Amino acid sequence: MDFEIYLMIDIQQATQIVLDHSRFLGNEKIALIESIGRVLQEDLKADRDFPPFTRVTMDGISIPYQSFAEGLRTFPIEALQAAGMAQKTLQNSRNCMEVMTGAILPQNTDTVIRYEDLSIEEGKAKIVIDAIKHRQNAHQQGTDRQKGDLIVPKGRGMSSAEIAVASTIGKSFIEVSRLPKVVIVSTGDELVEVNETPLPHQIRKSNVYSLQSSLLQWGIAAETRHLPDDKELIRRELLQYLKEFEVIILSGGVSKGKLDFVPEVLEELKVEKLFHKVAQRPGKPFWFGKTADNSTHIFALPGNPVSSFMCLYRYFHPWLRKSLGLSPFKKEWAVLKSDFHFRPALTYFLQVKLEFGEDARLWAVPVEGKGSGDLANLVDADGFLELPKERNDFQKGEVFPLMRYRI
Amino acid sequence: MDFEIYLMIDIQQATQIVLDHSRFLGNEKIALIESIGRVLQEDLKADRDFPPFTRVTMDGISIPYQSFAEGLRTFPIEALQAAGMAQKTLQNSRNCMEVMTGAILPQNTDTVIRYEDLSIEEGKAKIVIDAIKHRQNAHQQGTDRQKGDLIVPKGRGMSSAEIAVASTIGKSFIEVSRLPKVVIVSTGDELVEVNETPLPHQIRKSNVYSLQSSLLQWGIAAETRHLPDDKELIRRELLQYLKEFEVIILSGGVSKGKLDFVPEVLEELKVEKLFHKVAQRPGKPFWFGKTADNSTHIFALPGNPVSSFMCLYRYFHPWLRKSLGLSPFKKEWAVLKSDFHFRPALTYFLQVKLEFGEDARLWAVPVEGKGSGDLANLVDADGFLELPKERNDFQKGEVFPLMRYRI
Repeated sequence: MDFEIYLMIDIQQATQIVLDHSRFLGNEKIALIESIGRVLQEDLKADRDFPPFTRVTMDGISIPYQSFAEGLRTFPIEALQAAGMAQKTLQNSRNCMEVMTGAILPQNTDTVIRYEDLSIEEGKAKIVIDAIKHRQNAHQQGTDRQKGDLIVPKGRGMSSAEIAVASTIGKSFIEVSRLPKVVIVSTGDELVEVNETPLPHQIRKSNVYSLQSSLLQWGIAAETRHLPDDKELIRRELLQYLKEFEVIILSGGVSKGKLDFVPEVLEELKVEKLFHKVAQRPGKPFWFGKTADNSTHIFALPGNPVSSFMCLYRYFHPWLRKSLGLSPFKKEWAVLKSDFHFRPALTYFLQVKLEFGEDARLWAVPVEGKGSGDLANLVDADGFLELPKERNDFQKGEVFPLMRYRI
Repeated sequence: MDFEIYLMIDIQQATQIVLDHSRFLGNEKIALIESIGRVLQEDLKADRDFPPFTRVTMDGISIPYQSFAEGLRTFPIEALQAAGMAQKTLQNSRNCMEVMTGAILPQNTDTVIRYEDLSIEEGKAKIVIDAIKHRQNAHQQGTDRQKGDLIVPKGRGMSSAEIAVASTIGKSFIEVSRLPKVVIVSTGDELVEVNETPLPHQIRKSNVYSLQSSLLQWGIAAETRHLPDDKELIRRELLQYLKEFEVIILSGGVSKGKLDFVPEVLEELKVEKLFHKVAQRPGKPFWFGKTADNSTHIFALPGNPVSSFMCLYRYFHPWLRKSLGLSPFKKEWAVLKSDFHFRPALTYFLQVKLEFGEDARLWAVPVEGKGSGDLANLVDADGFLELPKERNDFQKGEVFPLMRYRI
């Protein structure tokens, strides 16, 4: 019997503690074009009406609708109003202006007829359709948004759409949340560098690189370090990292092993433990803490590759989102595509391959793998399905929360 | 009556033509950590077994199972086998080795009992549970993958999971598809720079920046240029771009206006037109072509912000995916959340806000906006729902293809 399970916090508690300890790091001003994926920290408001002038939306002619209503069909062309030209004025209401898409609508005209509905000969445009609408093909000033309107609220993740709006209102630089300074630390004497040839009992580092690349997608260029299984060295190095970095992500050294010095050393260094161990698989030995002055947060992840990977996506990413001032993930769900069983009283994060059904549902096909050491299995899956610890049997067709790591 | 519609190709034909003219640009070798989001161009194979040795997965002791089967419960600890140590050998089968997670399993032992199931006193470990399994807590060499096995096939998009595998097999540099050299070109005399104050009839550039930022997400650092409405200048500049770039993305100048010189000049420059105009809204005037020697592909997008945005995601991104050797998008679908009507015989790309239902379905809420000039509306939506041109009435609850631009 595993009594330890009953002493552990569950994933809901762990999530709450992690989120309760998010940390806003202030703003920085960056070039707009570099802001994709960053979190906006100023409200984007319309500096002018949207559109700023009544804008021609079709190439053709503009007329006063009244002349058409009075029966007029043929209009001598008085002048050309192209995009980028200052507004012209139609002098004679029985004439028309030739107008181009993007141009300001000429004064004394209100309605645009496109070339397709005209025949033009000898400087005269003849309308060849029976019905036109007052103000057609003219995008009226201020109808999308009005000067001063809030267009994008602070806290929004910047996509190409927000970049378009920011450009239009003249933001060549923009306030976004500053990203934390992060170090990713591998531990364990069995690890060698990627470019080295391991001895039979050694393996190459992989966690630090998968974690580092995942952070790169947020724009965070994390540094990496390695700690051997030497308590004194670990103490000295961690002390240094606590001074240098705002987030320390450790991989390994948090379990019950004789050489798992990380929790012990962190406590000796007066780092406040917020929890150690979560009722989940993979990732049970996950340790989370912070310094008393909130200057550094420490995510000490288990060293197994699937465990550290899962914990990063399940705990660090939401912490980061909240710290950056971004709204929480839109929770996603998927349908289990075949029966599944799991006995221990732990939340099980099942690796799944996703299928997009033509019923607009997301289907999750279990690709279980051979445990938390089986990193090759991660490349065959797209995400983790969260199976609650209160149950052991999960039926095909049931819906569970989904956490994706691949789009 | 709009006869032009019947002469236009539909979106299926346009998509097919675009994809038929994809262009593979060869490989390049880059540092592994920079490969996130890139497309793998070599097979990743296991250089050793996965795991490379039978690996201890719990901290505790290892024993020969046979001794337990014979009734033995208390085992003097002979030595410690930690991670990173060369393999040791248990000398006496009635003893045990103390073992740490990540260590190679000591010779003459086959079964690991974790600390939680032991009591240790005076150098002797006593097993305090009744049943253990042969080979438990030992991840057997080669059980995940065997040396030489294909783990990640070429053509895969690199996520953090693939980075982990590549690290493990020693790839500090990796072959990926080379990215195209792209220029994004705005046209139109009404445009001023983002840091300028527009006159009443002018607007700031926005399309080039939203397109540029969207390409940045693929790792493409596109250059930008601007062309005024001057045919000679357009000819001279385009001639230069055709020499310098592999992809030219133009925004504007492709419609029927008197100053819409782009299609004309491209044809004068012997660029082969593959199509002009697609039966869709927005984006009807979209022009696509290439040089005779396939050295440059030209996506001439309509200048309205919603049109150029939609066409980039709907045509350029799939072209890029195929050109990079990536599998096509997994097609996504969403359920229309309210009735919608659209009269013209055009495929309508409806802007929608997405909701993730607890039924694992994706729901699309129409946020229609005020036409293709309404760029502010893009920030209120997450994607486009593709409504077929053969129909005019779309009912709540029906499922349609979805194209997202925001995750």
